[in-house]
Amino acid sequence: MSYLELKREAYEANMELQRRNLIIYTWGNVSQIDRAKGVMAIKPSGVPYEELLPEHMVIVDMENNIVEGQMRPSSDTKTHTHLYRHFETIGGVTHTHSTYATAWAQAQVSIPCFGTTHADFAYGEIPCTAVMSDEQIERDYEEETGVQITDAFAGKNPDEVPMVIVAGHAPFTWGKDAAKSVYHAVVLEEIARMAYLTKTLNTQQASLKQGILEKHYQRKHGKNAYYGQS
Amino acid sequence: MSYLELKREAYEANMELQRRNLIIYTWGNVSQIDRAKGVMAIKPSGVPYEELLPEHMVIVDMENNIVEGQMRPSSDTKTHTHLYRHFETIGGVTHTHSTYATAWAQAQVSIPCFGTTHADFAYGEIPCTAVMSDEQIERDYEEETGVQITDAFAGKNPDEVPMVIVAGHAPFTWGKDAAKSVYHAVVLEEIARMAYLTKTLNTQQASLKQGILEKHYQRKHGKNAYYGQS
Amino acid sequence: MSYLELKREAYEANMELQRRNLIIYTWGNVSQIDRAKGVMAIKPSGVPYEELLPEHMVIVDMENNIVEGQMRPSSDTKTHTHLYRHFETIGGVTHTHSTYATAWAQAQVSIPCFGTTHADFAYGEIPCTAVMSDEQIERDYEEETGVQITDAFAGKNPDEVPMVIVAGHAPFTWGKDAAKSVYHAVVLEEIARMAYLTKTLNTQQASLKQGILEKHYQRKHGKNAYYGQS
Amino acid sequence: MSYLELKREAYEANMELQRRNLIIYTWGNVSQIDRAKGVMAIKPSGVPYEELLPEHMVIVDMENNIVEGQMRPSSDTKTHTHLYRHFETIGGVTHTHSTYATAWAQAQVSIPCFGTTHADFAYGEIPCTAVMSDEQIERDYEEETGVQITDAFAGKNPDEVPMVIVAGHAPFTWGKDAAKSVYHAVVLEEIARMAYLTKTLNTQQASLKQGILEKHYQRKHGKNAYYGQS
Repeated sequence: MSYLELKREAYEANMELQRRNLIIYTWGNVSQIDRAKGVMAIKPSGVPYEELLPEHMVIVDMENNIVEGQMRPSSDTKTHTHLYRHFETIGGVTHTHSTYATAWAQAQVSIPCFGTTHADFAYGEIPCTAVMSDEQIERDYEEETGVQITDAFAGKNPDEVPMVIVAGHAPFTWGKDAAKSVYHAVVLEEIARMAYLTKTLNTQQASLKQGILEKHYQRKHGKNAYYGQS
Repeated sequence: MSYLELKREAYEANMELQRRNLIIYTWGNVSQIDRAKGVMAIKPSGVPYEELLPEHMVIVDMENNIVEGQMRPSSDTKTHTHLYRHFETIGGVTHTHSTYATAWAQAQVSIPCFGTTHADFAYGEIPCTAVMSDEQIERDYEEETGVQITDAFAGKNPDEVPMVIVAGHAPFTWGKDAAKSVYHAVVLEEIARMAYLTKTLNTQQASLKQGILEKHYQRKHGKNAYYGQS
Repeated sequence: MSYLELKREAYEANMELQRRNLIIYTWGNVSQIDRAKGVMAIKPSGVPYEELLPEHMVIVDMENNIVEGQMRPSSDTKTHTHLYRHFETIGGVTHTHSTYATAWAQAQVSIPCFGTTHADFAYGEIPCTAVMSDEQIERDYEEETGVQITDAFAGKNPDEVPMVIVAGHAPFTWGKDAAKSVYHAVVLEEIARMAYLTKTLNTQQASLKQGILEKHYQRKHGKNAYYGQS
Repeated sequence: MSYLELKREAYEANMELQRRNLIIYTWGNVSQIDRAKGVMAIKPSGVPYEELLPEHMVIVDMENNIVEGQMRPSSDTKTHTHLYRHFETIGGVTHTHSTYATAWAQAQVSIPCFGTTHADFAYGEIPCTAVMSDEQIERDYEEETGVQITDAFAGKNPDEVPMVIVAGHAPFTWGKDAAKSVYHAVVLEEIARMAYLTKTLNTQQASLKQGILEKHYQRKHGKNAYYGQS
């Protein structure tokens, strides 16, 4: 894939965030990686979506060096590259401050799996990271945000739960490409909203029983999946 | 009614789900039955509403055999046919993951009748099914989802309460045709939203008194109904 | 004002309900009275807003007789005429099932005046009527709904609080004409929403102090009002 | 800047309030100051946004005298001039009754800093003013609203927290010009909404730790800021 194509894919995914009402102003960013070339295209920092163009996308390598582009890349660049380096199967990363997912992040608790809507997309709870230590903040805040996320996934398969909430901050989601990571950002916001409503209806609500979680996840994503067209 | 007409009715009802903002992506499906022919037209599995066409609808008989169509039918097909076999007066079925109705399903409680908006459409609470047993999940999940629903309606008239929430999952609604089942899906979501707000304002709120429920239901649906144009 | 003009005013006010997202389907009705002629124009019963035309409006006198019109008037007609007979200064009445106002009605409590947004339009709490007795329901439900409202306003000036919630049911609002009654329906929904949020943030929240309520109400509606253009 | 230009800037900022869905009817007002000339342009009182034109803006000096304009200025004019006189770095002021910010104002508590979305724009909690005394209401209500605000900022830098909620009333925001004050009104509403959701998920939720607040505020606004394009 050429840099031009990579930029266009990243651009289209960024614009989809706005169409889906997940962001206001500059509050989000999407990237897509080309693993063969070892670079990603990412949104420039602080540019309003209304003014964004495909050529504004910045090409950055996995050591956070700018390879091509006139603008400064997203201030969250190091979090994106950290995720690409550690989650080897993913091709796109999305960061938003979508309302309900951010509220759970601010409440600093994982989002329980309360129903099949959740189980259709994530195998179990959406983890909330630990709160960052002062040492980490000092060291390299955006890199350490990535560390918080990969620590929260120790022993977990990021393909089975393609989303996380960072304590006190906001969500990150991922997928096989930029478009799929945005899709998961939309799904997460709706899951987070339903979970908020469930929790405020019944603060003691237990998670969905394992059998139904298993069934729904596997009928969509298991080796004998029968959802969708083959 | 020809298969072509049946498909078109089912298609239009599916598209109405999107116009009414009850679904995102592929999260819902609507069917309509032709009782004379013993077949229904239903949405294909996993096709986004943006891409859906009338000819994509699949004709399926009441034993879940595909009669006509190139695509795999909705993964919830067996739940639809189960409902048509057991609720003999209904002509259309809708399944969504609409936000507030799903939140009640996740909280695993029936939606109480708190007011006349509810009583205008459903004679008493909207039942929540039992949680499915592991044996049922193993046996035939989608068929058993139908069983959960018909069990919840033992001794009840599905024409008087044309809607249900499946525990840990989401709502199903029905009506005399596909369009009316979608209408009930829209109504249920608004009833569920009002009930959520009422319950969070006063967790001890009692149901509407029987006399007002009776009056509102009967003035619209009773034999001396005087609502609407005759 | 001719019947034609009266119908047109009522029609426009009804359509405004839809533009302001206060209703779905047929869930509301607006009327306007011509006091000189002793008649009102009101929406016909059960007609969807999408299909409504000015000529559908029904002219009804204050004893609920149809004076002109091909259609059956709103099933809430007797509530409207009751209000016109008892609140002599009003010229328009609106009934909706708007979400937040209805939630308060279902919770069967008056909406406290928590802030200046409320005080700008209503002098003190929005009263919730008593729950209707079985005898009243039997006697004449829609007329008695009017009685519930006028009973709730005993000793109160309906011009100072141009809105009410009927217990277990939904809101009614009024004003100098149909358009103003719709305006008050929009205002009530927003007041009800803010009050819901306030109450769920702090269940013990006290009402706004009397001095600020007084100030805000009087600067807009008092004899020395200085809000707006003179 | 000519009066014409000043009016146009104030007009555009006022209209942006409507586009961002922060106001209904006449419920808000924006002004912009020309410090060299010692005058501001402000929205006229009680004029619906649908009818507003640039030439309706009123030019008012810092002692609240009308310098140019046919219409009566906003009833909140004295609050605006008070803020300009006391916060010397600001160039625009916005007042709305946006839903979630108003709910916090009605609950009469400051909005805690629960997350980085908040920290990106305000250095610490959004202060809620004291409730106004009866003496203040009697003396000069709108001037005293300004006093409540500047009292709440004693020892605080209004550039670091460009927003406030007035107890029992609603928010005011400010910025380097009218457009930026509207931007802060949009941001405040979203912060207030997220804080509401966080607080209702966990009523005991603590504020964001100081280190993260510091980091986020400084990376956007500090002397070594690296957010956005330089």
